[in-house]
Amino acid sequence: MSPNLALNQLVDRRRAAGDPLLHLAFGEARLPLLPGLARELAAGADRTAYGPVAGGEAVRAAAAGYFTRRRLPTGPDQIVVAPGSKPLLAALQLVLPGDVLLPRPAWNTYAPQARYAGKRVFGVPIPRECGGVPEPGVLRDTLRTARAAGHDPRILILTLPDNPTGTLAPPPLVRELCAIAEEEDLLIVSDEIYRDLVHDPRATPYVSPAELAPERTVVTTGLSKTLGLGGWRIGAARFPACARGERIRDGVVSAASELWSTLAGPMQRVAEYALAEPPEIRERFAASARLHGAVARAVHALAVRAGARCAPPTGGFYVYPDFEPLREELAGRGAKDSASLAERLLVDSGIVVLPGHHLGDEPAALRFKAATSLLYGDERQQREALEAGDPVRLPHIAATLTRLEEGFAALTGGTR
Amino acid sequence: MSPNLALNQLVDRRRAAGDPLLHLAFGEARLPLLPGLARELAAGADRTAYGPVAGGEAVRAAAAGYFTRRRLPTGPDQIVVAPGSKPLLAALQLVLPGDVLLPRPAWNTYAPQARYAGKRVFGVPIPRECGGVPEPGVLRDTLRTARAAGHDPRILILTLPDNPTGTLAPPPLVRELCAIAEEEDLLIVSDEIYRDLVHDPRATPYVSPAELAPERTVVTTGLSKTLGLGGWRIGAARFPACARGERIRDGVVSAASELWSTLAGPMQRVAEYALAEPPEIRERFAASARLHGAVARAVHALAVRAGARCAPPTGGFYVYPDFEPLREELAGRGAKDSASLAERLLVDSGIVVLPGHHLGDEPAALRFKAATSLLYGDERQQREALEAGDPVRLPHIAATLTRLEEGFAALTGGTR
Repeated sequence: MSPNLALNQLVDRRRAAGDPLLHLAFGEARLPLLPGLARELAAGADRTAYGPVAGGEAVRAAAAGYFTRRRLPTGPDQIVVAPGSKPLLAALQLVLPGDVLLPRPAWNTYAPQARYAGKRVFGVPIPRECGGVPEPGVLRDTLRTARAAGHDPRILILTLPDNPTGTLAPPPLVRELCAIAEEEDLLIVSDEIYRDLVHDPRATPYVSPAELAPERTVVTTGLSKTLGLGGWRIGAARFPACARGERIRDGVVSAASELWSTLAGPMQRVAEYALAEPPEIRERFAASARLHGAVARAVHALAVRAGARCAPPTGGFYVYPDFEPLREELAGRGAKDSASLAERLLVDSGIVVLPGHHLGDEPAALRFKAATSLLYGDERQQREALEAGDPVRLPHIAATLTRLEEGFAALTGGTR
Repeated sequence: MSPNLALNQLVDRRRAAGDPLLHLAFGEARLPLLPGLARELAAGADRTAYGPVAGGEAVRAAAAGYFTRRRLPTGPDQIVVAPGSKPLLAALQLVLPGDVLLPRPAWNTYAPQARYAGKRVFGVPIPRECGGVPEPGVLRDTLRTARAAGHDPRILILTLPDNPTGTLAPPPLVRELCAIAEEEDLLIVSDEIYRDLVHDPRATPYVSPAELAPERTVVTTGLSKTLGLGGWRIGAARFPACARGERIRDGVVSAASELWSTLAGPMQRVAEYALAEPPEIRERFAASARLHGAVARAVHALAVRAGARCAPPTGGFYVYPDFEPLREELAGRGAKDSASLAERLLVDSGIVVLPGHHLGDEPAALRFKAATSLLYGDERQQREALEAGDPVRLPHIAATLTRLEEGFAALTGGTR
């Protein structure tokens, strides 16, 4: 099973048994449901027919508008919606030829999807500055080596902003990777599900590979992260407006028709509403991005203060600290690699994180992913957090931050 | 693309252009939405979290009850729900070892799913009496030949009742196939999505392979057909209660976690309600089975009167006539195989059917699938049809039956 979902189930069971865990291992944005979404779901009940595999005209037009407002002019024919972006990413791997190049670490589902598609995965370490993309020089080396060994890497998956590192590749780096994709004839799959959760959009320029390499980039997105709708399963993909793009889209639609049929009708109605981005949706995007940013920065600060290295998070709701500078002290307490580091946090402090090796990272590295979106408390507290000027000072968030600080300190035997 | 969904889209476009087609090529039960289903969908809006991959405890308990009431004692741990039975069938093929044995003809999605899973498909002709199962003697021959050629057929997919033939394999035949499965160590996937649409349950004994070969049968079902909910995407699978069953279930849950995460929360709530089978749900099952039976029998009678051979339909909403006895007359009008026969019906009479070769059948055979559930008219007419003592005498159904009769007659140049 997907290790993050497996861990989530384990944690649910331990919590049900009364264990007060601090669960930071699952990429879920728990936020109150917007009333408009519930309204549209109910209003979509009459959509009981299968309808077109790619989604109805209305939902595809709404998704096209969404992308067009993001400097990606898009027609409805370039869109396929699905029950989550996950099945779209899986279908892309089933349909696209060649092996897969992944940043290392990367979201833990890309690699298993590649295995189901019978593909080989080449993990390329991320640069120091950010995750979600491979380091360009190492990418070139990997391509050379892989081809020399008879493999055929053709698909480059990028995550912008990134899960697990919570960082966003800056435009010059994206540009360099697009240039490599052109030179080396790679197809880019750009997973942009966290795009609307860039913490400070004015300070953080965003460029999609689909702007720079429009004929070789497929973009995926969804509502799970930006609207806290993971359990509703709504995703969309945007295909290039060219013959190649049409071929890939047709292949994905074929796969969809055999694997899941279509996005449920009522969910299509929800997506029509949300992707048209009325004011309350835009406000929620902005408010949740602010909240995620404030809490992710606070956790980042704690990790750095504890002695870890950690790229400052700029999008989404993750931090990915590296405790390498503390290797000696940690070894004394039995934390010698990714797995034992996560185990120490769980056993000593009841803190659940996702160890880096589950994300394709070096098992020997002392790194993990912490999902900071799980600190917002119950629904009333989530609402409070969304509205707060300084959410990290809210008592319930401050208290969990203190617990996290103590947990990090306990790793090296300190008391804070 | 899945040929039935592709055809459906083509027909939608031609209809939108004003072409008055009689569309019988898509397996959709268009029936009015039960108010309880809409109510539960709306009430499930608060289920925004991902939750367990297999589905929450409540929906799995409801599905377990559903199977238990059908002589298949089942615990919630034996259940996995998903956005349709289609993804469950796909996941089974990805997870189970070995190649696939299919009845010939069979539902047009099993074979492409096998191809996505990198499996070889062995089509085994159905017996004369019914579809959904291979003829036992030919199944044994196929196994011998395939193994002699170095292949490894290990999965037998059965459809009870069958799509496309609208027939149900009788218990002695199911028993014989289960015995072969035991002897030959085959795993049975029993697609029972039409189970509650047996036209006359008292006259038509039903036995599931899961009763006879409990440790080697996985059963799938869903709400799309029985409740006219194709567009809501709700399915379930039941795994054997043994170590092997748990391994298969765990494999399917792993695949689910990487391919679609889970069934959407609001849909889980709908499934909890429907699979508990309150009186209004049981009444709808019964009323729609009666309606499907009456109309399918009427279409069967027309086909036979036109000169075709056709097994009498006993479940679901399909007939699968064979125009072989009219081969000479048909050849004179250009209908020489499955594809040209369907084309004649479309071009000459505006009648859309799914030619048998799309279902794995011999391309040279003069067979097609007609989905009789598409004759019920608009929502008001559907309601009338559900309540009618003799639905085929309702003017709107009688009129389409007449049109169909004329279409069949036109195939051989007759005028009825």
